[in-house]
Order: sequence, then structure tokens, then C-alpha cells
Amino acid sequence: MHIPTDFNPACPFPIQNYPNVLLAHGGGGKLMRDLLGKMILPAFSNPLSRPQHDASVFELADRRLAFTTDSYVVRPLFFPGGDVGSLAVHGTVNDLAMAGARPLYLSAAFIIEEGLPMETLWKLVCSMQQAAKAANVQIITGDTKVVDKGKGDGLFINTAGIGVLEHSLTIAPQSVKPDDAILVNGDLGRHGMAIMAMREGLEFESAIESDSAPLAGAVLELLRAGIEVHCLRDLTRGGLTSVLNEIAEAAELTLSVEETLIPVREDVRAACEILGLDPLQVACEGRFAAFVPAREVDRAVDILRKQSCCGGACRIGQVTGRSDAKVLLKSMVGAQRILDMSSGEQLPRIC
Amino acid sequence: MHIPTDFNPACPFPIQNYPNVLLAHGGGGKLMRDLLGKMILPAFSNPLSRPQHDASVFELADRRLAFTTDSYVVRPLFFPGGDVGSLAVHGTVNDLAMAGARPLYLSAAFIIEEGLPMETLWKLVCSMQQAAKAANVQIITGDTKVVDKGKGDGLFINTAGIGVLEHSLTIAPQSVKPDDAILVNGDLGRHGMAIMAMREGLEFESAIESDSAPLAGAVLELLRAGIEVHCLRDLTRGGLTSVLNEIAEAAELTLSVEETLIPVREDVRAACEILGLDPLQVACEGRFAAFVPAREVDRAVDILRKQSCCGGACRIGQVTGRSDAKVLLKSMVGAQRILDMSSGEQLPRIC
Repeated sequence: MHIPTDFNPACPFPIQNYPNVLLAHGGGGKLMRDLLGKMILPAFSNPLSRPQHDASVFELADRRLAFTTDSYVVRPLFFPGGDVGSLAVHGTVNDLAMAGARPLYLSAAFIIEEGLPMETLWKLVCSMQQAAKAANVQIITGDTKVVDKGKGDGLFINTAGIGVLEHSLTIAPQSVKPDDAILVNGDLGRHGMAIMAMREGLEFESAIESDSAPLAGAVLELLRAGIEVHCLRDLTRGGLTSVLNEIAEAAELTLSVEETLIPVREDVRAACEILGLDPLQVACEGRFAAFVPAREVDRAVDILRKQSCCGGACRIGQVTGRSDAKVLLKSMVGAQRILDMSSGEQLPRIC
Repeated sequence: MHIPTDFNPACPFPIQNYPNVLLAHGGGGKLMRDLLGKMILPAFSNPLSRPQHDASVFELADRRLAFTTDSYVVRPLFFPGGDVGSLAVHGTVNDLAMAGARPLYLSAAFIIEEGLPMETLWKLVCSMQQAAKAANVQIITGDTKVVDKGKGDGLFINTAGIGVLEHSLTIAPQSVKPDDAILVNGDLGRHGMAIMAMREGLEFESAIESDSAPLAGAVLELLRAGIEVHCLRDLTRGGLTSVLNEIAEAAELTLSVEETLIPVREDVRAACEILGLDPLQVACEGRFAAFVPAREVDRAVDILRKQSCCGGACRIGQVTGRSDAKVLLKSMVGAQRILDMSSGEQLPRIC
């Protein structure tokens, strides 16, 4: 787990009096006010979070903004390398980063199943707070609902995010051009396999830890260096395969990648083999693909490798113009095949 | 139900092939792409919704923005006068309105329980689309997750919203002043009682319909007329009682309201009596309290009464300065008592 066992700051909410969440904690009365006022709001306290109000108000000088949302329903709630709290921050920060935006503000909405241990909620709230701080975003508004036991699954978290675009690029599939290089920022599949290994009770010499991490810093460094970034996409549900197919389709171009260039750790590859999964379809939460002009690929890789979470950045292929096939994979033995999307059953509730 | 039975535009998604939502519809593969591409995105289609991208980008000239979020876990999903889809639009639009903001953009995030009839999802998506159109907001980004059967409750919807403040007022409890008049925009308790009556199988001569409605239009009219609005709050979870207590506490002032002035319909009052509920604690979804200077109360009421959903606007009391008690209620028989918050068990999952 990425929450050190000694990290558990004293909770201002009296957990001993309410060891488990009650339906009444979502009912709009005193119990809810206590939970918000003594646990959640203190954790996310900042000048913009206005506990007594319906919406938070902020000022922005920049005119071009990005807006995104994601719900996080991963199970288990805690997994090697992360938890649903930090994931809910990273995922939304990363979606903003993929639009080339500097993430500024997040919302946090909790759907809690009655009976969730209050200690679990507090750990996850603390994890969100730490993740937000590390990602340099502020959680400025939120909501808490409680559903009956058996009508939820512990905790679902939704975050929405607002970011600013401080550049004039159009970072989108439509900007991808023939001959663009395709990069990734590191080895693939660790997030999904960390969770699947845990669910399936697989034991390895050392646990596979999730790659969950905030990516905005690395993206902003690319932009600050003037790299003409054409498209960015984080490799979440469906993994690299889904992302490449979606971009190929939207850009109406063929993408060619080489299996030998795509970094996958040996333990991840072994776990995938045991479970019959394709590492290129496994979700990551700290990995992205970038499309940049071929002439800028070396500089982009150099910049990325200096950023945290991006030490393994490398080129994995290029855009090869138009053809009937969307994504081509040159396999380790040199054969070329079409890399098609799965239908989607592979890994439920990975994020 | 507020969806006319003849309203069910042809769904571009082949419901006959997938009559129920599968886990795979949330898995990041082709099935998910189909669900998004053929059902959800067409319903919310607008120039800013970019199906192939992680975040939506927009431009704003105004610098003061409002940001809010809410999850909607009401059950049943359809109720007299509304459904969770329209509620998810109204609730977030109203939270923005309560900050004095013009609502502009919403996100829509679905947490679907495996097995939900696809037809139900489509009806609710259509309802959101209609509600967004009526409220003059655009749904520009979203997310869809599917959880295992038995780990959710049909459908939870989260919306986050962004609005702009086109005035220089500080609409907040801290702006409330002694002698301010307290208004509401209509009769209280209908939303909660519509749902409770349905859950409890109560029959009345005519069904109690939810008051769920978008309130931004009415608030913007008050502001356009130059009414010096000090504070606004929608009367959701915990009802009028919770709202008055929260504002009294934040403003450090005593509020006095008169039971004879507070509009509650007879059928709502009767249903409350049968169920042992206090109508002043029952949630509304189309009602708000406004704090305005006493000299402006008549004009404010006149303006509100011309707006839809506000025909029953009236003054219910005033701010009476500082004392130990937070909220005082002068009852129908003339006695005065402290109106205290409930602990919160009264009405679970009303919104």
C-alpha cells in the first residue's frame, strides 16, 4: 500500500462513536454535518472550499479551460501501489493533462455504502488529500451520499476537474499527422496486474505495484520545452490497444507499433500469461501515449525521462499514413498483425 | 412521471441486442465504445463534447466562476414529477444558481449496476438531455462505469457543473444582515413526499408530484433586476430546517420564521402526518430560500412570482440579530420554539 502504515493523522471526527458509516450520515442532518465538518472538509481545507455553500467560486485570468470527470469503482479499495482515493485524484488530473491543461481544481463526490468502516473512509480521504497536494491541485467542492448496505460496494468516488490551457496547441487526435512518432512514458500494465494479482491471490517474488501517478507535471514540461505535442492519451481502460485504436479511428490514420519497443516488465508479462491477458490491453493509471513530430522524438524522450514516473519513456512506433488497417503491431518475431480492440470483458472494475 | 409515455426517441444503440447492461459495457473495449458512441454521446451531442478525448475544452471571457458537484442516488429511479436523470441536471444547476452563477456546463458520470435494463438507461439519458436543454446548460464531458450485479443499485449519476458570475455580489451566509427578509419560492416538501408516498405505497386523490425544477432562471431574474441578494440556498437534504440552521450558524445570526407563512400543500402535510415526518425537514428539489434586504422584499416576491416554479414565492420570516438560539419558529398557535436540525435519519436516498 502506498499509505505508510504510520500515516494516519488524528481524525477530528470521533470514529470511536461511529465506527461504521450509517445511512444517517448522508441524511442532511447533524450526523452528516459532523461527518463533513470533522472529517472531509478539514482534510481538503483551502481558501476556496466553502463548507457552508453549494458551489465554490474562483477567478481565472486564462480563458481556455478544460473540464473532465471520472468515477472510480476499483476494487479492492486498497491495492499495492495505491488506493481508490489517490487513484481518483490521479485519474482526473491525468485526463486534464491529456488535454494539455494545467490541473487546478477538483471536486470530490463520495457514494458510501452503509457500514463502511469510518477508518477506511478516513484513510481514503487522507490519501486523496496527499495525492491532491502532490499533484498541485485543490479539492474545492464535494458531495457525500450514503446508500443502504448491499446497494453499493464500500465506496465509489467521483472527481471532476478544471484545468487551464496555457498554450495555443490543439492537442487532439485530429492533430495527429503522418510520420508522427508515438511515445509512451514507461512500462505498461502494472496498474491492472497489481489489482488482478491481488484479486486472484497470485504471489510473485515482489508484489507488482500499481503505476498510478499524476502525469501533469511531465506533460507541462514537454509543453514548456516547446515540443509540438499533437495528441496525448492516458492508457487506462482497454490499455494501449484501445487508445491506439481510438486515435487511429478519430485521426483516420494507420498507426504502427513494434512489440520489441513496448516496455512491459517481466513480472507483469508473467502474470498476464498466467491469467491469459494481453499486457497491451491492461489498464495503467500513470502511463500515457504521446504523438509528436518525428524530428522532436529524441528531445521529447529526454525531457520525459527527467520527470518522475517517466524514467522509462521511449518511442514505440509511428504514424504510417492511411490504409484499411487502423493499428499494426510488428511482433517480436517480426510478423505484422492488426492490433484490434477487445470487446471489453477483460478486466472489470480496474479504475 | 414527467417523461410522457410517448417520449422515447429511437435509440441509435441496438437495445434489442443488449437488453441489459453487461459488465463489459464498462470495460474499455468495443462494447463500451458502442454504448457511448450510439447512446450517450448522441444524446448529449454539442460542439464541446469531444467523444474521443479525455477532457472538454471551452473558452470563457468572465473571470469569476462557480464549480460544484453532486451524486444522485435517489430511489426509485422514476418518481412522480421526475426521475434521477432530470434530478441530476436540476440539482447541480440549482447549486450553481445558489452561488448566483449562470450555469453553463455540466459533466455526467454514470455508475451502472450490471443488469440494468438498457431501455431504462436510455430513458434516463433522454431525460437528462431534455432537462439540460430546458435549463440552458450543455453536458460536455462524462464517464460511464459498470459495477457487478448486487454491488450497486440500478444507476447512480454524478454531475459536476461550471457557471459564471455576472455580478459583483458576494452571495453567501456571511453576507446575511440583521433585518434581512427570508423568502421561499413556493410550497415545501413535495419532492420528498412524492418519493416517500411512492415507496410506502400511499395513495392520495391525486399523486404528489416532485417539485424538481431548474432555478437558475428565477435567480438570474432577481439579479438582473438589481435585487441585492445576500444569500441563496436550495432546500434539499434536511429541508428548510437544515438550511436555516446552517445559514444561522455560518452568519452567526438568529433567524425567525412563522409557520403560518410557510407554504405547505394540504396533501403534503397529510402525507407527512401519516409518516410522522416534519414537512420543514423534507427535501425539495425546486425550492430555495433567499435572503434580501427588507426594503426589497416585495419587489423580489413580485419578480419571482412571474417565473416558472416560483408562483408561490412569499416571505416567511426575517433575520432578527444575535441570540443564543439559531432558528426560531413561531408556530400556528403563536408559540415560539427553537427549530433544530434532525440528526439525519429522516429520509434516506431522497436525492
